[in-house]
Amino acid sequence: MRASFAEQAFMATCGATITSVEPGAVIIEFPFRDDLTQQHGFIHAGVVAAVADSACGYAALTLMPPEAAVLSVEFKVNLLAPAAGERFRAIARVIRAGRTLTVCAAEVHAIHGDARDDALVAAMQATMIALVDRPGIAEPQVLPADESGRE
Amino acid sequence: MRASFAEQAFMATCGATITSVEPGAVIIEFPFRDDLTQQHGFIHAGVVAAVADSACGYAALTLMPPEAAVLSVEFKVNLLAPAAGERFRAIARVIRAGRTLTVCAAEVHAIHGDARDDALVAAMQATMIALVDRPGIAEPQVLPADESGRE
Amino acid sequence: MRASFAEQAFMATCGATITSVEPGAVIIEFPFRDDLTQQHGFIHAGVVAAVADSACGYAALTLMPPEAAVLSVEFKVNLLAPAAGERFRAIARVIRAGRTLTVCAAEVHAIHGDARDDALVAAMQATMIALVDRPGIAEPQVLPADESGRE
Amino acid sequence: MRASFAEQAFMATCGATITSVEPGAVIIEFPFRDDLTQQHGFIHAGVVAAVADSACGYAALTLMPPEAAVLSVEFKVNLLAPAAGERFRAIARVIRAGRTLTVCAAEVHAIHGDARDDALVAAMQATMIALVDRPGIAEPQVLPADESGRE
Repeated sequence: MRASFAEQAFMATCGATITSVEPGAVIIEFPFRDDLTQQHGFIHAGVVAAVADSACGYAALTLMPPEAAVLSVEFKVNLLAPAAGERFRAIARVIRAGRTLTVCAAEVHAIHGDARDDALVAAMQATMIALVDRPGIAEPQVLPADESGRE
Repeated sequence: MRASFAEQAFMATCGATITSVEPGAVIIEFPFRDDLTQQHGFIHAGVVAAVADSACGYAALTLMPPEAAVLSVEFKVNLLAPAAGERFRAIARVIRAGRTLTVCAAEVHAIHGDARDDALVAAMQATMIALVDRPGIAEPQVLPADESGRE
Repeated sequence: MRASFAEQAFMATCGATITSVEPGAVIIEFPFRDDLTQQHGFIHAGVVAAVADSACGYAALTLMPPEAAVLSVEFKVNLLAPAAGERFRAIARVIRAGRTLTVCAAEVHAIHGDARDDALVAAMQATMIALVDRPGIAEPQVLPADESGRE
Repeated sequence: MRASFAEQAFMATCGATITSVEPGAVIIEFPFRDDLTQQHGFIHAGVVAAVADSACGYAALTLMPPEAAVLSVEFKVNLLAPAAGERFRAIARVIRAGRTLTVCAAEVHAIHGDARDDALVAAMQATMIALVDRPGIAEPQVLPADESGRE
């Protein structure tokens, strides 16, 4: 799973890292950065959604057979508060794991220097699909050399 | 509206540009780039969603009063095909404009060298809210100097 | 497909009937009735959603192999205006038909005596799944006796 | 709130009753009935959605000012398992209460004679709007005579 995440170039573009993996549950965090903002200076809703979607995808992948690749079927996100903060934490968990489809939920929290300001900024419900034996679609199985020491 | 888009740092991060604006309808395009991909080499679903969300937001803004700022309330996206292609085009339109809430739909198409390979890769339904007189939230009204010549 | 619809007891409960079937497109209509309302006297959002969901399911079924049964994976509906009117018409179409999953969109319109009052009351995006060889889940293939003359 | 629910004719049509009300949280239950089924004999996804939507609406209403009326803006439901069972329980809670918009989550459980068969059949994320001073839209404030003794 970490091998797959290391290949998600867009997560690197967002500065996102996986900070926790358990069966059916994944946490991804990323820092505030000016190049991820929308016109009011908050993190763009699409970045919030992208990270939550990745967390859902990997939470689903933890419960899929080793040969499966995971793709997003659909997701829905409610933006609950402007995404202002120092860091952001997407917490995803599987709510139903099926043979083909897995449904996940994720929350994204804004983390401030003072924890009393922490806030729930988004809630997602997402459907993931396990693909097996699709030409050209497989999860990376080996960490790139420069990643393997990071874990 | 273009002043606002010029302030969406994340759209610049994605290489996205507005290519059409009409009342209630906006098109945003962006090129394939390796740093926007997920682990299978397709554009990350979150990038597809982010650009479609921006297109919906600006389509909504075209029908809002000049003093309003626009924020995403929620969006739902179905990923219909892997986002492979040379360019991507998000076409958004307002399906209901209200005083407070505006509902939009967007399609994202993958554009290939050979148009016969063009494909619908995502469909979004989104709700936008018009904010008036909220401290700290207003749409930029003036293009930054280095943008004003671009239009 | 009409055999299957005839077995949807809840559609009968709502007074709903299929008024058009084409490959990838289905229309279902139902009349205003007091027992379908919510507390403000409009048709309950859940009834609007139920009929739109059925229309999406049957639109998907028209493009599935004959042995497949259809089930809803998920749907999202935006309620665009209070559902007031004499009749309601759910127009569903397939936006992507896949081997396993089919994505549909539906609009629900309120029909008044005076067509100038007609209004779009809801928009849905839905995912349907084709099930084959699942014990206990198959589409009815024969119209019940009291239905076969209705078409 | 119970006065409003008593006016939801469609909830009576479904045999649904409110079984728990707390600030920001509402539970609604309904029994299996043949007239609520789809073609495979399960409860229709639209009924599941309707009851979850009502539970979300009333959970939101518990946190709104007394003069507000509640309407559904949108909801998204994932159907996680076929809705088979003796009874069904929709558990809704507010995840963010705002001045205008309130976001809720709901789960629908199937209840069997043997609790080991109980199952999560649906998960919803919904947005509700508080309407104040809209002509013709207000929550009923008084229980009808034949309801007032029921609670």
